[in-house]
Amino acid sequence: MLTIKDCQMAFADYLAAHRFTQEPRNLYEPVNYIMDLGGKRIRPALVLLAHGLFSDVSEPALPAAMAVEIFHNFSLVHDDIMDEAPVRRGKPTLHEKYGLPAGILSGDVMLILAGQFLTRCEPASHTGALVRVFNEMAIEVCEGQQLDMDFEQDLNCTLPLYLKMIELKTGALIGASLELGAMVAGAEASDLFHLRSFGRKLGIAFQLQDDYLDTFGDPEKFGKKPGGDIVRNKKTFLVLRAAELANAAQKTALDQWMGSIHPNESEKVAAVMDIFTALDIQEETRRAMTQYHEEALGHLKAVQTTDHKKEGLLELSEMLFNRDF
Amino acid sequence: MLTIKDCQMAFADYLAAHRFTQEPRNLYEPVNYIMDLGGKRIRPALVLLAHGLFSDVSEPALPAAMAVEIFHNFSLVHDDIMDEAPVRRGKPTLHEKYGLPAGILSGDVMLILAGQFLTRCEPASHTGALVRVFNEMAIEVCEGQQLDMDFEQDLNCTLPLYLKMIELKTGALIGASLELGAMVAGAEASDLFHLRSFGRKLGIAFQLQDDYLDTFGDPEKFGKKPGGDIVRNKKTFLVLRAAELANAAQKTALDQWMGSIHPNESEKVAAVMDIFTALDIQEETRRAMTQYHEEALGHLKAVQTTDHKKEGLLELSEMLFNRDF
Repeated sequence: MLTIKDCQMAFADYLAAHRFTQEPRNLYEPVNYIMDLGGKRIRPALVLLAHGLFSDVSEPALPAAMAVEIFHNFSLVHDDIMDEAPVRRGKPTLHEKYGLPAGILSGDVMLILAGQFLTRCEPASHTGALVRVFNEMAIEVCEGQQLDMDFEQDLNCTLPLYLKMIELKTGALIGASLELGAMVAGAEASDLFHLRSFGRKLGIAFQLQDDYLDTFGDPEKFGKKPGGDIVRNKKTFLVLRAAELANAAQKTALDQWMGSIHPNESEKVAAVMDIFTALDIQEETRRAMTQYHEEALGHLKAVQTTDHKKEGLLELSEMLFNRDF
Repeated sequence: MLTIKDCQMAFADYLAAHRFTQEPRNLYEPVNYIMDLGGKRIRPALVLLAHGLFSDVSEPALPAAMAVEIFHNFSLVHDDIMDEAPVRRGKPTLHEKYGLPAGILSGDVMLILAGQFLTRCEPASHTGALVRVFNEMAIEVCEGQQLDMDFEQDLNCTLPLYLKMIELKTGALIGASLELGAMVAGAEASDLFHLRSFGRKLGIAFQLQDDYLDTFGDPEKFGKKPGGDIVRNKKTFLVLRAAELANAAQKTALDQWMGSIHPNESEKVAAVMDIFTALDIQEETRRAMTQYHEEALGHLKAVQTTDHKKEGLLELSEMLFNRDF
């Protein structure tokens, strides 16, 4: 059985063997910079583990693993420009270090390089199908990012649309990573469906947990003061679910607190937390997380291979869900 | 025989039938905006004309025509951000109208949509090969744009690198348009090579003519005062060829004039033109243009089909070269 460690090591070797040494250097050096910032390489591991469900060797899936990792980093580069983020993983963001034109153009070339790696997967007869899944995912990620930006402008933000947004922005790539890995191994359509669904639900559960921890997380364990999302008026599952459950007075109070920047942050966090407590939002969120997590596991269970082969994916999904990485 | 008019009409119909009506609107409305700005649809016409060399129907090549036109517009959108251009075809550029994040994200989705249209070409067994040619071209266009930006910073700008830059930035897409169209029709490798080479050389000739007209063009015919490139210190074929041919004194004078912004524009243009005249740069440029143009036509001639079928492409290449559109 393939372990997460095996996958990460195989991917690290592949990455090291495929550095971008081409000319012009001003185009490709920023690509190496962002790829070298590291990260946990979760998505390539998902590609290789899904491939490993149906195959005993990892090599054929490595170009697909590279494709999803480059795509993920492309999306970080362009999102960081749109979000005006100066820092990523403790280092300057790409556009902060190399300038806006480099941020745009090196991002563009990464999107194309990702597609190019995907076409290196053998057999060539699968290429069309791989590219179709990849493009569909890539479009979904753009749509998710647009919805996310729309929500910041307060456009049409409802709980169902929010769940759609996190499915597109986070779930689509996790689902496609699994699907692409399995496709390279020649998996059946029903297994592809279940792996894609497993990934998408897992992505949603992961994002809900992100929302949960920001407000209810143990500050000692997660290293930050709770309530950052509240301070920044971020539309999260918590706020949107509270808006659904609130009575008129609670709704008015919530809209007021979450509609403006308040000078006293602690007072604001405490007031919104009171509303959350009255509406049992902690339990509501935990229930939703668990539900998506269980749905995800149901799809993994339905994949037609041995339980033993699924251990790596199960372990990775638990690591993701428990932030244990 | 397929005429240019036939191609433009067929493409206009296809474009009208494939408007981007999806959600979220803030992502796709800017795509319609830029696609509706018009332009001469030269590249889709090249796809269809190249397809027409080997086939009597146009329909199968329409998704490829759409792919190259969307790609071309994607590159305009992102280039306009990098160049801080406020106006395109007499209208606000996309980022000027919708903001920087929309410029980046709607550009990104166009790059993916272009690839997606390409995968719609039948038969599906060709998809992998089409995608490979498309990705290689797309990377070349990014590399060309990077070299262009490097040259503005005065990095390593020599005549051979300048010719490489315009081949990548302009020639690659023209060459790939022809190649993709012919591929959809199942053309032989040698014909693909000659069509690609025809397009690349034509693209270089076209860009050299652009340089030529900016300085030596008839102001009445081209509607602008000559010498704009000189005023802006732009590295063009003219300046780079002059730098190759200049003696020490001429080289020093050229570097001085072209290395700073001069308060008296007419004086600067006249001084640089004097150097150009002394070095016979007008004739040098005309010779280079003619050489690339003739090389291009040599490749078209080598394509294995009837002369009659080549008439549309010949006509389009003359229109391009004579700016008669």
